[in-house]
Amino acid sequence: MTTIFNPRYLLFCLLILTFSSSHPSVAQSDSVFIRNIYTEALAHGQAYENLRYLCKQIGPRLTGSEGEAKAIAWTADLMRSYGMDSVWLQPAQTPVWTRGKKESARIHAKNGAIKVSVAALGNSPGTGKKGVKAEIIEVKSLAELRDKGDVVKGKIVFINQPMPPDMVNTFDAYSETGVIRFMGPAEAAKLGAVGTVVRSLATSIDEYPHTGSTNYGLHVPKIPAVAISTRDAEVLSQVIAREGSTVFSFATHSQMLEPITSYNVVGEIRGTEFPDEIIVFGGHLDSWDLAEGAHDDGAGMIHSLEALRILKQNYRPKRTLRVVMFMNEESGQYGGKEYARVSEEKGEKHIAALESDAGGFLPLGFSIDAGPDVIEKIRGWRHLFEPYNVLFFNKGYGGADINPLKNQGVPLLGLRPDSQRYFEVHHASSDVFENVNRRELELGCAAFASMIYLIDQYGL
Amino acid sequence: MTTIFNPRYLLFCLLILTFSSSHPSVAQSDSVFIRNIYTEALAHGQAYENLRYLCKQIGPRLTGSEGEAKAIAWTADLMRSYGMDSVWLQPAQTPVWTRGKKESARIHAKNGAIKVSVAALGNSPGTGKKGVKAEIIEVKSLAELRDKGDVVKGKIVFINQPMPPDMVNTFDAYSETGVIRFMGPAEAAKLGAVGTVVRSLATSIDEYPHTGSTNYGLHVPKIPAVAISTRDAEVLSQVIAREGSTVFSFATHSQMLEPITSYNVVGEIRGTEFPDEIIVFGGHLDSWDLAEGAHDDGAGMIHSLEALRILKQNYRPKRTLRVVMFMNEESGQYGGKEYARVSEEKGEKHIAALESDAGGFLPLGFSIDAGPDVIEKIRGWRHLFEPYNVLFFNKGYGGADINPLKNQGVPLLGLRPDSQRYFEVHHASSDVFENVNRRELELGCAAFASMIYLIDQYGL
Repeated sequence: MTTIFNPRYLLFCLLILTFSSSHPSVAQSDSVFIRNIYTEALAHGQAYENLRYLCKQIGPRLTGSEGEAKAIAWTADLMRSYGMDSVWLQPAQTPVWTRGKKESARIHAKNGAIKVSVAALGNSPGTGKKGVKAEIIEVKSLAELRDKGDVVKGKIVFINQPMPPDMVNTFDAYSETGVIRFMGPAEAAKLGAVGTVVRSLATSIDEYPHTGSTNYGLHVPKIPAVAISTRDAEVLSQVIAREGSTVFSFATHSQMLEPITSYNVVGEIRGTEFPDEIIVFGGHLDSWDLAEGAHDDGAGMIHSLEALRILKQNYRPKRTLRVVMFMNEESGQYGGKEYARVSEEKGEKHIAALESDAGGFLPLGFSIDAGPDVIEKIRGWRHLFEPYNVLFFNKGYGGADINPLKNQGVPLLGLRPDSQRYFEVHHASSDVFENVNRRELELGCAAFASMIYLIDQYGL
Repeated sequence: MTTIFNPRYLLFCLLILTFSSSHPSVAQSDSVFIRNIYTEALAHGQAYENLRYLCKQIGPRLTGSEGEAKAIAWTADLMRSYGMDSVWLQPAQTPVWTRGKKESARIHAKNGAIKVSVAALGNSPGTGKKGVKAEIIEVKSLAELRDKGDVVKGKIVFINQPMPPDMVNTFDAYSETGVIRFMGPAEAAKLGAVGTVVRSLATSIDEYPHTGSTNYGLHVPKIPAVAISTRDAEVLSQVIAREGSTVFSFATHSQMLEPITSYNVVGEIRGTEFPDEIIVFGGHLDSWDLAEGAHDDGAGMIHSLEALRILKQNYRPKRTLRVVMFMNEESGQYGGKEYARVSEEKGEKHIAALESDAGGFLPLGFSIDAGPDVIEKIRGWRHLFEPYNVLFFNKGYGGADINPLKNQGVPLLGLRPDSQRYFEVHHASSDVFENVNRRELELGCAAFASMIYLIDQYGL
């Protein structure tokens, strides 16, 4: 309840009345429509409570897990409750990896063993019951690892490369150091290592190991691999520096299971004027198993579902709006690839694809993977976003799940929330509902809905 | 340690070398200088550990308290350690208010008393040992209160006006509803009320009462006044709606003490070319007593001190840089007013004043209280801030402590961090170090330092 004696509030009431009419009229300008989207998201939004449900009632959603199955059912039901024209499950084959029971690891320092906090990397095999125990060798980069050559044989490799703190966009820092997790275990295996310990890809010094997938390729022995918390990476590095030759041991219980059929969840509102022109938007349904996947990618799911709810409520789109909860982004984007394959097979025409997979923080804008004319057209809408401090519209990556549509020439847009806090929670047990701010999440929903609205109005 | 095999890192090293030279050379462009400021703040910053010290070793800094005295000594020492040309304490008379022991409050509902969470408002008197107990009347605004007239006599007034959630800048929402705290108790007193309960000015529903000063004026009886947590405001409103006539009681132990002499802490680096042209910047040294004043205004103090440290380290300013820790912002800006008075008395020439008093969150830009030519000049530097997503340079309020300089025609600039989370902690016991993000704080320091550098280089 806000003051009713304030001219601003009277305007607000008028806008609500306008918004409540079933069609946008010519009198209803884009700026008013977008103001109404923001008001709905901030004052009457369902995003935060939906995210709470996803995180607390469903929880982790690793592909193949009970959580994933529940999330498929829940998001399909939610879409139906919003009155979509159709909702369906799109099947896709996907590999399944499981962590098994909790990992353990120790530094065998001269004064006694030091327990450290680790998590097996996705796709990595378990160590077997006995675990792996060997001398550990520290390197600061993959290049330094390659230079080590035969010395590595029979040893555990510790790749201790911090994310550079000076990059303002932490995704740039992730791009720079991510290779230690993606490729580190395979590079170590090539040289005969028996295990790999990778410094967590995190911007903070804390006790959480940050997992994520690694890749071995076809011709490399799959050696066990873990991420170690940044705090314990510092401890391990100090012990090695102090004691020289140091023994490390760890046990993991992970394994690849048989592939399964899982599902993208798709909902659609058909366009009134150009039903064959599809605007697709979404986030990914799966998460890592260590936490609730609140930011990764619960926020992206909710941004998409809430944008759909807000637009559906009082707007009839000209074009077909299609929301997709992509399955299995985390270990190979199997859902995203299948969506693009089927769409190509059917000869569907996507005029734009939008993805939210960078957290539920303050939205700063969109990165755009498209030609200069498309980017210019979007920049022409900048004044409509200025009241909301959404000011970033630069060429850049769209997103992992929509990227396979690029071959079809579809313009891709990625929502870009601020990234300062993202790598404190990414793929770690700290990625929980409590670390998502209500207003920041709601502003992301509104920015996403506003962009979808403008693309629907004017095409790209 | 970052990868040394990356072209970006080599560039980074070159920049560091450049930055290490004692003077900016003509070859060193503004963009390189600003990149170096950011690198220093993010990779070698002292902001976060200084804020930790301020919050954890000194803590609350209410004017007249031991914490304030400690903060005066510590900030003066810190300035000296940075090698200022001079550091001094500037005395000013200031009133002193003290909370006394913890408040208590109860709703006397039909099924028994319900304890609720309240905090006395600054400047309000205590209730006396017996407390105040009376029927409570709920209003949603000051206008509704005034309309009540005589009905209020002998009763406790409950002003339950939430901050409007739909405003993107939460300071706008604070401006709109702040009047219930500033003026509510005085308005209730005029009508003969015996006490006032004000809904906390907070954007979240939680258990923290948010204090802050209130004003009675000269001709109004000073009645006891408390803020109630938003959660308990909802409870109280529900009880009143359900039960009708409801009795409420509260006890506060606050009082005004004798005025004291306190101090602004001032440090100065004299300019090499235009020593008589002063650029002043700062935050306020005092805080409320309920918490550590981490965001309000520990962050502003640290933004200013770290900006000074970074600039002092490798740069000789053309103009005089003066940092001020203003005392007693929270209950009347006595420090800010005295600073302006003395400056005018001395005939000092300030070419700009900058303030940080809006939290330690992601810096979005600056609001500028100056003529259009000054705003245009600052906007001309926008491209230098774009790599850091500092994009907001609009006309607006500078800040409470620098505002008294406006009479002298000084252009005022307020740092504008994102405001989404500010009113979850503002003036409440949740305003603690743990709620400040390291990277966000550091980016604020860098943005502040960069603006000071540009004003020093080019004037305004």
